[in-house]
Amino acid sequence: MSKSGKHGIILFGHGARDPRWGEPFERLAAKLRVLRGEPVSLAFLELMSPDLPAAVARQAAGACDAITIVPVFFGQGGHVRRDLPEIVDKCRAAHPNIPISCAIAVGEDDAVLDAVVEYCLRQSDQ
Amino acid sequence: MSKSGKHGIILFGHGARDPRWGEPFERLAAKLRVLRGEPVSLAFLELMSPDLPAAVARQAAGACDAITIVPVFFGQGGHVRRDLPEIVDKCRAAHPNIPISCAIAVGEDDAVLDAVVEYCLRQSDQ
Repeated sequence: MSKSGKHGIILFGHGARDPRWGEPFERLAAKLRVLRGEPVSLAFLELMSPDLPAAVARQAAGACDAITIVPVFFGQGGHVRRDLPEIVDKCRAAHPNIPISCAIAVGEDDAVLDAVVEYCLRQSDQ
Repeated sequence: MSKSGKHGIILFGHGARDPRWGEPFERLAAKLRVLRGEPVSLAFLELMSPDLPAAVARQAAGACDAITIVPVFFGQGGHVRRDLPEIVDKCRAAHPNIPISCAIAVGEDDAVLDAVVEYCLRQSDQ
């Protein structure tokens, strides 16, 4: 993978009607932007914009030469196992020169689950 | 709040058609059970069982005298802001002697978001 350009991250979420649903995603992106000098974007499956092809196109136009998509979902159900790979295939076809990788859903990560466990323990101690 | 009985936790998730979606929720519950001697259950809004009233009834029948519900959602959209309070009100009406509290969605917690950020950084370094 070339290291001459930028390596973008796209946080991929489900989307919802209520704009307040998106707040943790905005906070995630802001935290990541502080820690990395490279592009961080949001993209949504439905009900919110941009969608994933638009977010990928914007990073590609912004000189990213590699993109990692991180599904911000707890479980890997149909949206992550079936819908997302189809959309990623279309993105790869539209940008054949840019390696686009796709991570496992964040909820499968043990450290993320441990943080959720700590949160639950704090809630039940109150 | 009486401390003579048990204080149950119910992890409340959306639910999905694909049973593999539920795996992180099962892992969360298993981790919590290791750390607490008190009941930990799962409950789902749709597509998976049990639903929240059934999970609450089971903990009430199991001598829990307080229950904390933790929404395992990233964003607080309509499911958490509108659907969940309606269901919790019904649970409280069905079990008026048991204090039932409801936490903010786990995705609003800063430490949970920090763990997701760390995960994203690890993914984009690979």
